[in-house]
Amino acid sequence: MSISTDATIASFGGKLLKLKHSAKTTNCEMKFNLFLPSTATTSKPAPVLIYLAGLTCTGDNGAEKGFFQSKAAEKGIAVVYPDTSPRGLGIEGEDESYDFGSGAGFYVDATKEPYSKGYKMYSYITEELPKALFGQFKELDGSRVSITGHSMGGHGALTLFLKNPGMYKSVSAFAPIANPSKCPWGEKAFSGYFGEDQKQKWADHDATELLPKFPNDTDILIDVGTGDNFYKQGQLLPENLEKAAKETGKGLKVNYREGTFAGDHVEHAAKYLLK
Amino acid sequence: MSISTDATIASFGGKLLKLKHSAKTTNCEMKFNLFLPSTATTSKPAPVLIYLAGLTCTGDNGAEKGFFQSKAAEKGIAVVYPDTSPRGLGIEGEDESYDFGSGAGFYVDATKEPYSKGYKMYSYITEELPKALFGQFKELDGSRVSITGHSMGGHGALTLFLKNPGMYKSVSAFAPIANPSKCPWGEKAFSGYFGEDQKQKWADHDATELLPKFPNDTDILIDVGTGDNFYKQGQLLPENLEKAAKETGKGLKVNYREGTFAGDHVEHAAKYLLK
Repeated sequence: MSISTDATIASFGGKLLKLKHSAKTTNCEMKFNLFLPSTATTSKPAPVLIYLAGLTCTGDNGAEKGFFQSKAAEKGIAVVYPDTSPRGLGIEGEDESYDFGSGAGFYVDATKEPYSKGYKMYSYITEELPKALFGQFKELDGSRVSITGHSMGGHGALTLFLKNPGMYKSVSAFAPIANPSKCPWGEKAFSGYFGEDQKQKWADHDATELLPKFPNDTDILIDVGTGDNFYKQGQLLPENLEKAAKETGKGLKVNYREGTFAGDHVEHAAKYLLK
Repeated sequence: MSISTDATIASFGGKLLKLKHSAKTTNCEMKFNLFLPSTATTSKPAPVLIYLAGLTCTGDNGAEKGFFQSKAAEKGIAVVYPDTSPRGLGIEGEDESYDFGSGAGFYVDATKEPYSKGYKMYSYITEELPKALFGQFKELDGSRVSITGHSMGGHGALTLFLKNPGMYKSVSAFAPIANPSKCPWGEKAFSGYFGEDQKQKWADHDATELLPKFPNDTDILIDVGTGDNFYKQGQLLPENLEKAAKETGKGLKVNYREGTFAGDHVEHAAKYLLK
């Protein structure tokens, strides 16, 4: 189905388009955002960076906060911000958890009822969205696409890259869920979307399992904040991915960055609230 | 109106409550989140940190990402995450901009039509919400409340603190809009909510104007990322607040933190997309 434009917003010299289309894979209307740098033209189409968002997010969060646009504008790179799940399918319980169902598609094709109805974010991101997008926006160069993401979206970026050699020119991630089969978020999602006994399917969507099998060299960049609560809780497990990379000679750089803003601000309040 | 509970989620040993109530100030149902540490009881009520979110956010974003809960649980502090505006008032154009109208209440009481109808986030946060909350949740100590916020919410935290000496035990902010009368976001919001000619009202909600008039000493903590695009665009202007603090001998610490994750990840993709 063709993509329609809800809004066009001036952004860093280019424009941010708020778009939607009716998607077959996900069985609903899907919204997403596209940042087009001023340099993108049909005669000189821009390469594309896909940003996969994390739990609870839509395609709006990253786009409206402008995380990437400044640098992307400078480099002449377009940025696509898809949604994180189908919306409004009417599956019982789909809106109940922040970490499963709506806002939490995990970039897989669910095979277990009732989520198999439309929770097909893997096919949506790798097939339906690019086909619709590159078919319609000739200012985009569909042969030069990279992928990145945050948290659940970091898991998505890593696994989509690793499952599709050659599809993406590069991959990076912030605080990715790097070994979902071994963490509570991933266990919940994979149990619900595949089934508890479908361990091969789990492995097929787990970056730490996929990396050793990747046929080419890699140059993967990952950032993790060591003060990140989810890192500390063992939801992210970048060490497991690092170990897999080291054992198989794959290129992976994990930057562990210290400190969190939030912790400092609670400490500041605590000085006054608890004295 | 009494507060009802939509969900109770286990969080860092305590619980995260998803709450809603019908609010008079904002003329609509308001949702918000409350993190209750395990130590909070009616016989030993917990002090409270209010986190005001930024543009486009709801009370869910900060709460579900868990930014504060880990440290708050450790310290025995409750955290309240209000919404950033009324919702669904049906004012023409209220959903059109990310930086005005819904998701962008700016923590003021609008006096200009049509937003004066329900865009009263100042009264909501300083009066109606605490009255409803502390009236119902006896596990909270309404006499020990601090406030913090991000971006537009940082502006909210600073101005609510400065306009109400003694109401809050402390204030801090991440990347606050520190001088809204002098930046595009603030000019747009204050023009729309007050009117372009209402400069006294603008000043009454501008931290840089309010700080010199504050009757007490202050110990304000602010974090700003120097790679933050909005900082670079002059939307935040923490330097103006610093100047006001210095000139009047008020206590203010602005930490300028370097670098952004996002820029690095675009650089990584650019290496491959542009070669």
